[in-house]
Amino acid sequence: MGRPRKSEHTRQKLLEKGVTLLSEHGYHGCGLKKILDTVQVPKGSFYNYFESKEAYVSEIIQFYSHGLIMRMDAYLEASTGDPVTTIRNLYTTVADELEAHGRLGCLIGNLAAELGTSSNLCRLTMQQSFEAWKNRIVPLIKAGQEGGQIRDDLSAESLTDMFWSTWQGGLLRMKIYGDAEHLRDLLHVILDVLFVPCGKEPQPDTTRKE
Amino acid sequence: MGRPRKSEHTRQKLLEKGVTLLSEHGYHGCGLKKILDTVQVPKGSFYNYFESKEAYVSEIIQFYSHGLIMRMDAYLEASTGDPVTTIRNLYTTVADELEAHGRLGCLIGNLAAELGTSSNLCRLTMQQSFEAWKNRIVPLIKAGQEGGQIRDDLSAESLTDMFWSTWQGGLLRMKIYGDAEHLRDLLHVILDVLFVPCGKEPQPDTTRKE
Repeated sequence: MGRPRKSEHTRQKLLEKGVTLLSEHGYHGCGLKKILDTVQVPKGSFYNYFESKEAYVSEIIQFYSHGLIMRMDAYLEASTGDPVTTIRNLYTTVADELEAHGRLGCLIGNLAAELGTSSNLCRLTMQQSFEAWKNRIVPLIKAGQEGGQIRDDLSAESLTDMFWSTWQGGLLRMKIYGDAEHLRDLLHVILDVLFVPCGKEPQPDTTRKE
Repeated sequence: MGRPRKSEHTRQKLLEKGVTLLSEHGYHGCGLKKILDTVQVPKGSFYNYFESKEAYVSEIIQFYSHGLIMRMDAYLEASTGDPVTTIRNLYTTVADELEAHGRLGCLIGNLAAELGTSSNLCRLTMQQSFEAWKNRIVPLIKAGQEGGQIRDDLSAESLTDMFWSTWQGGLLRMKIYGDAEHLRDLLHVILDVLFVPCGKEPQPDTTRKE
């Protein structure tokens, strides 16, 4: 007897709910049963959609990352500011959203902390997510270097890598202290001071809300 | 009938094993039963040592942090180099150790990702650990600023905060990519370039192993 036809709608719901529940409870804190109950999928039919919990989480990472990248592309497309202002506005918006909606941090950073050394499949998916993000930021940093806004004694790749790490660590600090203020401090420290070429005045801190 | 006398030895073993198992499996991936079985403590007597799993994890964080700070103090006491060399050598050693022993990252960063928003007790303990660490690094950065090695257009506190976040994010990246090379890159980028005052030559990259 053939397997039942896979419903794209249910699959989509499993991915969406997976993002929410994994963000709230982490991989190990989030049993498959909890997700399936929420989406009202019987355990037996889960394997019509995904091969294993690990494969499911890998697809959740892709789904989450794809959503972020789509939003990022739309934002970058619409942005008319200089590269530094574009990055600052994008990440100030993220800090504001995190503050407003419960400070869950970045699903990829959270899963890296929890799963990094144990699931090769999820590690590879997280690498792809990181690269997709990096491919959007490097050209902005390069444009900032070419326009004289950003120092060029380090490569755009190095500065982008460092920005990712600093932001991800900032998200951990946000969780420990319970507010997103440190994220705004980091944006100011990086974009307005550390990234500024020698001889150019550091910029005033404009990351704060009025 | 009174409770049995609490054995300091067993308590110590529970804390030590707790660090190892939490580092490997995270909070939710590490049932109490697993730890108790490993240390051969019956479940019923666990509560002679700790009030709850949350209180236990909070003490594990303290225990882990205390161990790190003791090592850090011994290292700083023995160090004869300038402040930047001291920080670089300390963290190059950490990167080497992480590479040699399985890249588990920092227990506090991992638990922040997993628990940050759910356990207030653990959040407070993590704040204390962060402050204890920060109290060791700020004077080094200040000394570097006074000696002209480190830029002084940002406060020592800001630079220290940023260093913590960058390092913690670097540990996540290490988990995603499976090597500690990025940690060495970050040390070079921060200590030899971004922290260097304007007009002073960036330093060559000496974080690589021969």
